[in-house]
Amino acid sequence: MSATLSVSKIYNDLTLYTSHLIKIGTLLIMTIVAVKISTALINKFFENKSKLKIVGEEKRLDTIKGIIVSVVKYTIYFVGLTPILEIFEINIGSLIAAAGVGGLAIGFGAQSLIKDVITGFFILLENQFQVGDYVAVDDLSGIVEEMTLRVTILRDFNGDMHIIPNGTINRLTNKCRGSMRAWIEVGVAYEENIDHVIDRLNYLFDKIENENIIGKAQTLGVTNFGSSEVTIAIIARCTPMNQWDVERFLRKEIKNMFDKEGIEIPYEKRVIIQEK
Amino acid sequence: MSATLSVSKIYNDLTLYTSHLIKIGTLLIMTIVAVKISTALINKFFENKSKLKIVGEEKRLDTIKGIIVSVVKYTIYFVGLTPILEIFEINIGSLIAAAGVGGLAIGFGAQSLIKDVITGFFILLENQFQVGDYVAVDDLSGIVEEMTLRVTILRDFNGDMHIIPNGTINRLTNKCRGSMRAWIEVGVAYEENIDHVIDRLNYLFDKIENENIIGKAQTLGVTNFGSSEVTIAIIARCTPMNQWDVERFLRKEIKNMFDKEGIEIPYEKRVIIQEK
Amino acid sequence: MSATLSVSKIYNDLTLYTSHLIKIGTLLIMTIVAVKISTALINKFFENKSKLKIVGEEKRLDTIKGIIVSVVKYTIYFVGLTPILEIFEINIGSLIAAAGVGGLAIGFGAQSLIKDVITGFFILLENQFQVGDYVAVDDLSGIVEEMTLRVTILRDFNGDMHIIPNGTINRLTNKCRGSMRAWIEVGVAYEENIDHVIDRLNYLFDKIENENIIGKAQTLGVTNFGSSEVTIAIIARCTPMNQWDVERFLRKEIKNMFDKEGIEIPYEKRVIIQEK
Amino acid sequence: MSATLSVSKIYNDLTLYTSHLIKIGTLLIMTIVAVKISTALINKFFENKSKLKIVGEEKRLDTIKGIIVSVVKYTIYFVGLTPILEIFEINIGSLIAAAGVGGLAIGFGAQSLIKDVITGFFILLENQFQVGDYVAVDDLSGIVEEMTLRVTILRDFNGDMHIIPNGTINRLTNKCRGSMRAWIEVGVAYEENIDHVIDRLNYLFDKIENENIIGKAQTLGVTNFGSSEVTIAIIARCTPMNQWDVERFLRKEIKNMFDKEGIEIPYEKRVIIQEK
Amino acid sequence: MSATLSVSKIYNDLTLYTSHLIKIGTLLIMTIVAVKISTALINKFFENKSKLKIVGEEKRLDTIKGIIVSVVKYTIYFVGLTPILEIFEINIGSLIAAAGVGGLAIGFGAQSLIKDVITGFFILLENQFQVGDYVAVDDLSGIVEEMTLRVTILRDFNGDMHIIPNGTINRLTNKCRGSMRAWIEVGVAYEENIDHVIDRLNYLFDKIENENIIGKAQTLGVTNFGSSEVTIAIIARCTPMNQWDVERFLRKEIKNMFDKEGIEIPYEKRVIIQEK
Amino acid sequence: MSATLSVSKIYNDLTLYTSHLIKIGTLLIMTIVAVKISTALINKFFENKSKLKIVGEEKRLDTIKGIIVSVVKYTIYFVGLTPILEIFEINIGSLIAAAGVGGLAIGFGAQSLIKDVITGFFILLENQFQVGDYVAVDDLSGIVEEMTLRVTILRDFNGDMHIIPNGTINRLTNKCRGSMRAWIEVGVAYEENIDHVIDRLNYLFDKIENENIIGKAQTLGVTNFGSSEVTIAIIARCTPMNQWDVERFLRKEIKNMFDKEGIEIPYEKRVIIQEK
Amino acid sequence: MSATLSVSKIYNDLTLYTSHLIKIGTLLIMTIVAVKISTALINKFFENKSKLKIVGEEKRLDTIKGIIVSVVKYTIYFVGLTPILEIFEINIGSLIAAAGVGGLAIGFGAQSLIKDVITGFFILLENQFQVGDYVAVDDLSGIVEEMTLRVTILRDFNGDMHIIPNGTINRLTNKCRGSMRAWIEVGVAYEENIDHVIDRLNYLFDKIENENIIGKAQTLGVTNFGSSEVTIAIIARCTPMNQWDVERFLRKEIKNMFDKEGIEIPYEKRVIIQEK
Repeated sequence: MSATLSVSKIYNDLTLYTSHLIKIGTLLIMTIVAVKISTALINKFFENKSKLKIVGEEKRLDTIKGIIVSVVKYTIYFVGLTPILEIFEINIGSLIAAAGVGGLAIGFGAQSLIKDVITGFFILLENQFQVGDYVAVDDLSGIVEEMTLRVTILRDFNGDMHIIPNGTINRLTNKCRGSMRAWIEVGVAYEENIDHVIDRLNYLFDKIENENIIGKAQTLGVTNFGSSEVTIAIIARCTPMNQWDVERFLRKEIKNMFDKEGIEIPYEKRVIIQEK
Repeated sequence: MSATLSVSKIYNDLTLYTSHLIKIGTLLIMTIVAVKISTALINKFFENKSKLKIVGEEKRLDTIKGIIVSVVKYTIYFVGLTPILEIFEINIGSLIAAAGVGGLAIGFGAQSLIKDVITGFFILLENQFQVGDYVAVDDLSGIVEEMTLRVTILRDFNGDMHIIPNGTINRLTNKCRGSMRAWIEVGVAYEENIDHVIDRLNYLFDKIENENIIGKAQTLGVTNFGSSEVTIAIIARCTPMNQWDVERFLRKEIKNMFDKEGIEIPYEKRVIIQEK
Repeated sequence: MSATLSVSKIYNDLTLYTSHLIKIGTLLIMTIVAVKISTALINKFFENKSKLKIVGEEKRLDTIKGIIVSVVKYTIYFVGLTPILEIFEINIGSLIAAAGVGGLAIGFGAQSLIKDVITGFFILLENQFQVGDYVAVDDLSGIVEEMTLRVTILRDFNGDMHIIPNGTINRLTNKCRGSMRAWIEVGVAYEENIDHVIDRLNYLFDKIENENIIGKAQTLGVTNFGSSEVTIAIIARCTPMNQWDVERFLRKEIKNMFDKEGIEIPYEKRVIIQEK
Repeated sequence: MSATLSVSKIYNDLTLYTSHLIKIGTLLIMTIVAVKISTALINKFFENKSKLKIVGEEKRLDTIKGIIVSVVKYTIYFVGLTPILEIFEINIGSLIAAAGVGGLAIGFGAQSLIKDVITGFFILLENQFQVGDYVAVDDLSGIVEEMTLRVTILRDFNGDMHIIPNGTINRLTNKCRGSMRAWIEVGVAYEENIDHVIDRLNYLFDKIENENIIGKAQTLGVTNFGSSEVTIAIIARCTPMNQWDVERFLRKEIKNMFDKEGIEIPYEKRVIIQEK
Repeated sequence: MSATLSVSKIYNDLTLYTSHLIKIGTLLIMTIVAVKISTALINKFFENKSKLKIVGEEKRLDTIKGIIVSVVKYTIYFVGLTPILEIFEINIGSLIAAAGVGGLAIGFGAQSLIKDVITGFFILLENQFQVGDYVAVDDLSGIVEEMTLRVTILRDFNGDMHIIPNGTINRLTNKCRGSMRAWIEVGVAYEENIDHVIDRLNYLFDKIENENIIGKAQTLGVTNFGSSEVTIAIIARCTPMNQWDVERFLRKEIKNMFDKEGIEIPYEKRVIIQEK
Repeated sequence: MSATLSVSKIYNDLTLYTSHLIKIGTLLIMTIVAVKISTALINKFFENKSKLKIVGEEKRLDTIKGIIVSVVKYTIYFVGLTPILEIFEINIGSLIAAAGVGGLAIGFGAQSLIKDVITGFFILLENQFQVGDYVAVDDLSGIVEEMTLRVTILRDFNGDMHIIPNGTINRLTNKCRGSMRAWIEVGVAYEENIDHVIDRLNYLFDKIENENIIGKAQTLGVTNFGSSEVTIAIIARCTPMNQWDVERFLRKEIKNMFDKEGIEIPYEKRVIIQEK
Repeated sequence: MSATLSVSKIYNDLTLYTSHLIKIGTLLIMTIVAVKISTALINKFFENKSKLKIVGEEKRLDTIKGIIVSVVKYTIYFVGLTPILEIFEINIGSLIAAAGVGGLAIGFGAQSLIKDVITGFFILLENQFQVGDYVAVDDLSGIVEEMTLRVTILRDFNGDMHIIPNGTINRLTNKCRGSMRAWIEVGVAYEENIDHVIDRLNYLFDKIENENIIGKAQTLGVTNFGSSEVTIAIIARCTPMNQWDVERFLRKEIKNMFDKEGIEIPYEKRVIIQEK
């Protein structure tokens, strides 16, 4: 009986080994095919895309394509080949369970790292800023000096180097996309005739020239009744990063014009009532 | 005995294979039917909806329909076809377990991405704002320049470009839906007769014309007893985005009228008591 | 022996199929009965409730009943019929496990959506506010323009449209339930006799008439010793949304009465000591 | 052999059914007994408790007892009778797993609801406040108008109705338990003799009568050297909700006494040095 | 064959029942022994501890011992006797799984309750404060009126009753442990001789007597150059809760001494330059 | 056949019992060996370490070694001996599952306790502060009076006793490691010659002697153009906890020197323009 | 029959033992090979890297390489050798489950420790700062005195020692990378001619010499119209850590030059109107 049993055992074993071999083969082929197909699909996707876009963007697209291809490839390999280990009766589950408590802890620790990379990927993909742009993230701002998948490095005007993990960038303000606004508020005495002041300002803005101003500066009107002065606002569109220059330029021109025209920028005034 | 055993084995195997084939067939048919039905249902739902709405909204509805159809379709395919893999004794569970620790970590990292898309979908569905609207999100505001499922891009008045992930938009203020309010507070001396001032203001508001004011500006009354002046509030409904223009316009008109009527906008006053 | 085996097999299978049919039948009947009973219970619950309440509330109760009935119905169907799928040896567990990682991620993303709906349901159920009420949520306030299960839309006085997901509404202030308070603080000179001033104010409040004031305005007394004035507080109950009107009305009346009676609202005073 | 097999099968089945019946019976009896015992225990617990407490608290204790009894009862029924379903081979586990993803999401959403109820229960149990008390929760305050297990409704002095979910009440301030303090700070000139001023104030406090003051108002002494005045603090214990009345009453009395005694409440003083 | 089978069955069952009885017996004995031992250990631990400490602390130690004993006892009973239920083939796991979703939700809700009790236990154990102490928790402060495992009740000086769940107490400040500091800053004119002023102050502090001052008040020196005065700091150690009394006492004494010595507490000074 | 079956059964059982005994023995030996080895390793590690360090640190190292040894020992015992229980077929898993819901809740509650201990251990290990040091944690500061694994107790200068759980200590500032800085800013009139003032200050600093100043005080230069004065900064390194003494000492010396040299610390200045 | 059974048993056992031995051998070999390969790969990676970089960085790279090698090595050993324990039928899963509740709790507690180490590793890897750099983390700043994988120790200018766990460092500002900016704002009277002032300032900046200024200081222009003065901004690039010195140096030079040139830094001005 032991003989018959072992024969049936061997039969079973053979069937099992054959089935194992078939499974492993199937898995290998499926995995490789999956990698090929997905790589091809990604390449095709980017080919179409790169035709539509300008030449200078090639490099950025290549970087993005490279990242996507390698992530997809290794994911497929990992997911596809794991069952082979299991066929050799090495229990993956228990390996992972064994690595579990520690792994979980590390996972939580590494979580912010993954968030950095994902956010970094989107900043790159959506072209939110480029090296050289002046950007603001919450209360930190500066010119982008370097951008990696994990961190963005800003150089503040005062020389500070801010190192910002991408995952902490929630909302971002790019100050180099399109024309910027110069905004000046100047107070004139209540005794002045507002129409006359606005007229003189507009005459000045017609005359002055500054390569950074787009179009002409404009007088908006009375934005506030202050305690000692009427506030008049002046606006000018200018090329990015030159708005502060333009504001300083306009302030000097206005000051000189006011001096010449005798328009008063008033000091604070107090009415005094003497009580006995 | 090994013979009889293997016969019964083959019988079992055959039964098993037949049952497998039936299961796979059933799954395929059920999956395809489910996709057909749900697509049809979604189409019908949007047909009814689009009849009720105006023509210009077609495009937005098409976008939404497209998103819903593809999400539903791929979910059904995935959920429906997974058991087939299991029939081939490729344990899905262990695949997922294997992909688990990493997947969880990525899942947490990608969580904010999913939140972005879901919130973006609702902004689109509920038509919370359109490109060109002036909106405020917490302390950032600007005109919507672009809106995708992941981010909303605002152009601030000073030229800044704010890039806001949709998932961080909790509460949103749209400043272009319906008429806006111009609000001016002007101080007059305690010595003035309040009824006279209000009378003169209302006379002015009857006379002036401004295409951006809806109806007429109105004097509300005394809103504060200040340290040196009685504060009078003026209100006007105006077309969206012109409220600041209207406020500046009204301020100049009021200033000119006060100059003419001799109504005093007082400087700060101090009563001085000389002590020996 | 293979014959006897297969006979016993068929016997087993038949027993199994019979038991399957019985189980499916039982499940179907139980599910349908459960739906019937719970619908009936909900209907009865609302019948009793609607007798007690006034007629105008019918519509709100119908909405709530409709939501509850459909939630309960679909939950019972889903929970009750799931085991049938399992009988066909389609493993629900593995379906769900397969849908797991993604589902969890979406679940986290959709979490705020569910919180919106639950909070929205309670706002409706507890009648916390109605369309047209003036409410405040944290630092946003306005008149409720629309209320859905997901969002509440407020129209601010300045025209802003605030879109607030219900889930972000923690604490809510309704400013239209019951009478509101007008509160005015007016400063009089230290030289004035307080009792005389209070007497004159109360005389004025007895005389004046304003449809928005409930009862009469009242002088509360001295609420502060300021640096240049004694602060006297005045209070009036008024109809909702008219408190600001009443305050402005009272301020003008008080100013006119003070002018007539010669009661001084003092400017800031400074005692000056000249040093050699 | 099939016969012997089926006999042994039937034997097994009979044994199984008998064992099932015994289990179901045991479970039913145990469940009912458990409900009886726990109800009895709760009743006894509250009987002892109610003997010790005053009569007016009966109603609150009844509410609490009712909540506890029903929670305990339904928990025992649910936990006790669930295994019966399992005996009928309806897998509870898979039902719950099926309801899992959705249930988890709802669970997270409903989490704040449960927290509301638990906190509400403790507020009731510990008698933290009663309807009519004046309480403060963070920056909201008002008189408690209604208190349910889910929300507390406060009526602010200005008429606002605050709706506060109990779960958001972390720390609570009850302003109606025990006597309250009236606190007045009055500034007198540096030229005054402090001992004389305190003497005059105490003389006044001995003389005046106010039903809301518990005992007598007291002069504490010099709490600050201000820029133009020495600050003297006055304290009085008073009945709850009347502290503001008492403060206004005392301020007027002090002002009148100071006028009579010639004690100066100084204006701000400046020493002026003239520079050539 | 059925006979032999059933004999072997009965043999198996008997073995099983015997093994069950042995297991139950073992569990009962082990559980009871474990309870005895742990109770004895706790008692012994506290015996040693109570010898070292003073008599007045007995009551607090008894409370703590009681809590520990009952927690340990019921935990051992619960953990020790659970397997018995399992022997009767009542699946504990499925009971708990059934109670799972709800239980998890309640667990999250009750989480803060457990945190309250644990923190409360540590406050008691570490004797962080006693009834009657004046403590501050974040921005709330008051005299401890009652302390339970769940909440701490503070009575503020103004009569407010703060109810603070222990779990929200992160950092705690006890203001009744050891001597407190009275701190006074007094400004003298720039014209004064600092050494003379300090000398006069120290002479005063030698002379005056106040039972609440520990040792003598001390003059620290010049802590600031103000805009119109040199600030001099004075310090005194005093018995707890009397620091404010001491500060007011010292301020009056200093004011009187300055008046007598002719030391000036200056008003704010301004240098005025007249411009033509 | 039953006989043969039971013989084979007994054979199996014997094999099982033998295997059990072997397993238990192996576990016991492995556990004990593991404890011995790890204790030896820890001892050796600390032996090496203690040779390098100074004698006074022995006690701190002993405390740390003690904690590590006991944690490691009990962990090994627990982990090593748990399988023995399982051999007796007492299912550990179900015990733990039974203790699950409650345990999880307690776990979450106790989480902050564990965080306290871990942070406390690192504070001790890294010698972040010692009893008697003056440290600041966020907005609380004081002299460390006691330090346990769970809490740190600070004594504030005003007598307050802050009880801070170690787990809430994120960032810590130790103000007793190395020399501290005294920093004084003194304003001089715009009319003064800056070089002269700096010269006089440096002359003073050369002359004065104070045991708490390390080296000499130094004049840094002009740190601000104020509205009425030029601000000059002075710096001095001093022994810890004496920086405030040194600052007061220097202020008095500077004031006296300025008086003697006739250098003016200016009052605020205003230029007055009289308007007709 | 028992004989045949036990023979077949022994056969099975032998097969099992052989398979065990093969598995253990395979695991050992695979583990050792994996360690060798990964160590080699890491070494090669760093070899390439170190060729490209400068010599001084060798030490930092060695540290990083050491950390990576040991982490990889122990992970492979742990993951690779765990299945061997399982072969001896010591259930790893139950060990871990047993260690579960406690482990999870500790895991959560230790989570911040792991986050510290991971962040510390990235700071080292990305060379974010070196010992001796002046850095700012949120509101704490100082010179880096020591940097470990767990904490960074900063020495503030005032002598404070800040101990900052690396995991709490989100965004970091390094103030020692590249040139820094000195920024001075100086106010001149409205009566001054702006062009003249700027001319005089630039003349001064051409003349003065300071080794810390890179290039020359520059006058930017008018940055504000103040209430009493026109604000002019001056900028200079300087070597790191000397910007404050340069600012003080420039301020003194400007003050001296203004004195010589008679340019007025104005006091605050007030226009006074006398009222009858």
